[in-house]
Amino acid sequence: MSDINIIRLHHAALNVTDLEKARHFYEDGLGLIVTESDGRHLYLRGIDDANHHSLMLIKAGQPSLNHIAYRVSSEEALDRLGQIFLSENLPIRWLDKDEECGQGRALRVQDPQGFPVEFFCGMEKTELMMQKFHLHRGAKIKRIDHANCLVRDINQAYDWYIDKLGFMCSEYTVYSGEKDVLWAAWLHRKPTVHDLALIREVGPRYHHTGFWVDDAKTILDACDHLAGMGYYLNIERPPGRHGTSNAFFVYVRDPDGHRTELFTGDYFTNDPDWEPIRWSLEDPQRATFWGALPPKSWREEAMPVQHILTGELLKIEPPV
Amino acid sequence: MSDINIIRLHHAALNVTDLEKARHFYEDGLGLIVTESDGRHLYLRGIDDANHHSLMLIKAGQPSLNHIAYRVSSEEALDRLGQIFLSENLPIRWLDKDEECGQGRALRVQDPQGFPVEFFCGMEKTELMMQKFHLHRGAKIKRIDHANCLVRDINQAYDWYIDKLGFMCSEYTVYSGEKDVLWAAWLHRKPTVHDLALIREVGPRYHHTGFWVDDAKTILDACDHLAGMGYYLNIERPPGRHGTSNAFFVYVRDPDGHRTELFTGDYFTNDPDWEPIRWSLEDPQRATFWGALPPKSWREEAMPVQHILTGELLKIEPPV
Amino acid sequence: MSDINIIRLHHAALNVTDLEKARHFYEDGLGLIVTESDGRHLYLRGIDDANHHSLMLIKAGQPSLNHIAYRVSSEEALDRLGQIFLSENLPIRWLDKDEECGQGRALRVQDPQGFPVEFFCGMEKTELMMQKFHLHRGAKIKRIDHANCLVRDINQAYDWYIDKLGFMCSEYTVYSGEKDVLWAAWLHRKPTVHDLALIREVGPRYHHTGFWVDDAKTILDACDHLAGMGYYLNIERPPGRHGTSNAFFVYVRDPDGHRTELFTGDYFTNDPDWEPIRWSLEDPQRATFWGALPPKSWREEAMPVQHILTGELLKIEPPV
Amino acid sequence: MSDINIIRLHHAALNVTDLEKARHFYEDGLGLIVTESDGRHLYLRGIDDANHHSLMLIKAGQPSLNHIAYRVSSEEALDRLGQIFLSENLPIRWLDKDEECGQGRALRVQDPQGFPVEFFCGMEKTELMMQKFHLHRGAKIKRIDHANCLVRDINQAYDWYIDKLGFMCSEYTVYSGEKDVLWAAWLHRKPTVHDLALIREVGPRYHHTGFWVDDAKTILDACDHLAGMGYYLNIERPPGRHGTSNAFFVYVRDPDGHRTELFTGDYFTNDPDWEPIRWSLEDPQRATFWGALPPKSWREEAMPVQHILTGELLKIEPPV
Repeated sequence: MSDINIIRLHHAALNVTDLEKARHFYEDGLGLIVTESDGRHLYLRGIDDANHHSLMLIKAGQPSLNHIAYRVSSEEALDRLGQIFLSENLPIRWLDKDEECGQGRALRVQDPQGFPVEFFCGMEKTELMMQKFHLHRGAKIKRIDHANCLVRDINQAYDWYIDKLGFMCSEYTVYSGEKDVLWAAWLHRKPTVHDLALIREVGPRYHHTGFWVDDAKTILDACDHLAGMGYYLNIERPPGRHGTSNAFFVYVRDPDGHRTELFTGDYFTNDPDWEPIRWSLEDPQRATFWGALPPKSWREEAMPVQHILTGELLKIEPPV
Repeated sequence: MSDINIIRLHHAALNVTDLEKARHFYEDGLGLIVTESDGRHLYLRGIDDANHHSLMLIKAGQPSLNHIAYRVSSEEALDRLGQIFLSENLPIRWLDKDEECGQGRALRVQDPQGFPVEFFCGMEKTELMMQKFHLHRGAKIKRIDHANCLVRDINQAYDWYIDKLGFMCSEYTVYSGEKDVLWAAWLHRKPTVHDLALIREVGPRYHHTGFWVDDAKTILDACDHLAGMGYYLNIERPPGRHGTSNAFFVYVRDPDGHRTELFTGDYFTNDPDWEPIRWSLEDPQRATFWGALPPKSWREEAMPVQHILTGELLKIEPPV
Repeated sequence: MSDINIIRLHHAALNVTDLEKARHFYEDGLGLIVTESDGRHLYLRGIDDANHHSLMLIKAGQPSLNHIAYRVSSEEALDRLGQIFLSENLPIRWLDKDEECGQGRALRVQDPQGFPVEFFCGMEKTELMMQKFHLHRGAKIKRIDHANCLVRDINQAYDWYIDKLGFMCSEYTVYSGEKDVLWAAWLHRKPTVHDLALIREVGPRYHHTGFWVDDAKTILDACDHLAGMGYYLNIERPPGRHGTSNAFFVYVRDPDGHRTELFTGDYFTNDPDWEPIRWSLEDPQRATFWGALPPKSWREEAMPVQHILTGELLKIEPPV
Repeated sequence: MSDINIIRLHHAALNVTDLEKARHFYEDGLGLIVTESDGRHLYLRGIDDANHHSLMLIKAGQPSLNHIAYRVSSEEALDRLGQIFLSENLPIRWLDKDEECGQGRALRVQDPQGFPVEFFCGMEKTELMMQKFHLHRGAKIKRIDHANCLVRDINQAYDWYIDKLGFMCSEYTVYSGEKDVLWAAWLHRKPTVHDLALIREVGPRYHHTGFWVDDAKTILDACDHLAGMGYYLNIERPPGRHGTSNAFFVYVRDPDGHRTELFTGDYFTNDPDWEPIRWSLEDPQRATFWGALPPKSWREEAMPVQHILTGELLKIEPPV
């Protein structure tokens, strides 16, 4: 397990129905930087991203999750990951270098809960925009942070990512009762709160991609910027503090409904004696530390996910 | 009219049912500074306040607005105000120096819409806490900014404050239709957006007192501070940007339900050619520029107001 | 005196040697909005400015102060001001409407200390950019706030502005000793710390124009933005808190050396019992509340000022 | 090498001459939380720290660095570290559990450049204050971030930490010339800019301990708080943006002269193709991106370091 060494969540790839509309939202609205584009793909990155893309948009007939991608430490780690998925008879597909633009050889799989997941090691470098402050725009996104997935079998998903892929748990939420029954878990590889959040829900569905920004004021500025452009209906869940993760957040939806969390305020999770923080589902400060409930759309709406081989959308079913 | 010279809204006096609970909220929660107290009264002020109080809490059997108070430029202005209210046969009462603790001679009246309003010129000075930063706490409130009143007859109230008392209008909201019909108005004496907001509603009721803080980050810190203390249910309307007034805000309720707005982001309104900004009631960015609706309680709940002579609460009736 | 009613400092007009370089600095660097320009003039304004200009740049052979301008409440007030300056045998000149682009009839004078000062009432309105947040750039300047003038005779200047023009004093600094001897004074017409700061120095020289921004974070962002563009040498005095005025500031120099203060954190000064705050020149927290000394250039360099009739620069001499 | 697995810099231990004065500075000024104290020791931690201490103060005759401490992943890693230092004939000393209060078994060594360094795996847990926002005070320090050491032989130190202890380089500075000659290096184990900065200087001396805060506004608030308390002379280098590391910073000195950096604005450094950022010593934006020079004291003053066996201060000599 430890020799796989997944570094971190590295990018998300979203199927969108109108690439021009999506570009307007992500480039002019959120301020992501366009590295490259063609008629069917748009590759974007954050201010701190040194590689080709941390968000990839793909023209498609309907919106869905194309895949999320983790970066691993070496080509050997990639081979070992392939063996793990093969041995479990899960769908896998090897991509050649540049089959995904700018990216090295990659492994694409369907994880046990049905999520399309990619692993890769190498990616083309790009110009680092970190200190070109005068070119930072919109939400001034620094980098991708995490993916949030709605899974039907939370226990299976939790065990898979912890035991097989070496993730660690920073926080989790349980249904209260005589015994703790898991509702959600925040898992990480990089030493922050998460690379991957898992929630027990109707699934498989993709809830949101989390991007890191520098501070809370930047999130407020992003709201003003989006609302000034006319994107006020896209600000779905207003800025607030999460109980779980302690992050300051806002949630916005792109023109297809893909959800982005702008997120700041992390803490360090890699000490050998770190004990995951336990939340009860009923805790009124869990979702929002300041007490407000997420809106209905945030609680109920999420994206279907695509099969890595057939391209079909996976059937959405109740949790087990 | 111009020789009255009302300077600004100076303080609010609220009837509260439990002075200890109220003190915990306003002093430890919001960080207002206690100037003085006795068993029935608590006098508080902000960081920038050079005088005895900008908030006065009075022990009472039920919560209501005791009065709001404007400061005027001279004792002569006070006399002229008395004549205006007398000539309109409105209830008035003269208070001796120190009848309200720390305050000079004062005029208390019931305005034409039923609101208990006080005017005074002199008040005891206190220690200025402006640069004692290490003693600033909680919401780090700098000073009072405005009062928000729900009136039955908005046209009458508007004319009274503009024509008789010399207020000016910075922004207003209308029911859309063939002709503009007034729904709300933001009136000022000091050159900011408002000292007094008037809204057509079931009334007379007092909606909130607005206090100025330095910046948006301070408002977020205040939410964390209140939620850390357990006051998360008191954060009624989450932080956001108003369309009207362009202010960044949060609304909190004290243990009796009195509403406070923490507020920042004003602009200058005293140029001779300032044209009031017009809003349509239907504009989705009017209440919150970022699109979110205020919660039901914010739209529906407000405080009764007290008669200055009898102490009884005024009957609450539908708008005309 | 009281019938003059100066509203506030309204704009500054600076002579610059290279209009293109100046435009790059003020428009792309500081983010001021260009209202209009011709080959010899550039008219800029802040985000909250509803009128034609709050900064005017004029192509000239050498950098100097062309004039600072105050807005008055009425045309009659303008006439009375003309009489005051005439009766003192000070140089005056009447400008026709649009002689300064977008501006109504104006009075230009040389004040007793030699400063070129303009008074006017009317100015063309422009589009208000306040809520077009997506178009706010650079330092996101909201509006002009104050002018800082180095005068040879501080006592004369103080008396003139207080007694003749109705300014009020918010703070002042004295040489310590048996008796207070005035070194500097912060004077205002709008109810903030200042419209005009006067400092006893080699003069007459113009030290800086102060512009208001929303909060301290915006000032830090402005430094990053300017430094990202390569303007790091133009950041003369790093961000800090003033003792006097309590403002958070940064000072930047334009390509000709004209100095701009970005400034936030004001307080209200119009209460009838406001007592000016006294500072001793020796107080180590006076200039910077955090203790740092201003750099030599900030203490020693300032702009010559132009004669309103001859266009010549006034002779610079030691203080009296 | 890879089986050592140092997690991160975990705490600093400083010798101070007056424990009460030091406590006032670190607890009331910087807002660190006191976990435990006796007449000769004070143990403090940040808001996010889940263990006993991240700063330890020790009563001593003169100020110096007692040691800095790294946390390792396991007791086995500790043993292997002991073997490395033994095999190089460097001074080592094993500490029993609780010999340093709250800490497990530990290895203390003198590194090849003379710095007293500790390694340990286990430490007592404490109450996590992360969401007790109402108890956060002063600089609201979240956690320790890095140590900055002045070494005589930068090449030897660089190789030691990279090759023997598995550190990675995020940024470095060179004397410009025909060939790059190393002047300073930023080394990390956790995936941020650094756990350890090395600078070629008169040494061995300890320059500063860096603590993480949430955002730039918090650093400005900390300056106001310290200056309000009278600690304005302790604010040595005013807030600004570093070129190297891209962090926003302020440097403060404790009553003995120990230097603390309050620091925010990090980026992620663990991708397999991360290329260290190269700076030239002559770059005017290197030390401060906004162009200001550090004050003389910051460039010249630093603390002697103590021998782990004799307790004597190491002789300070010019760089090689």
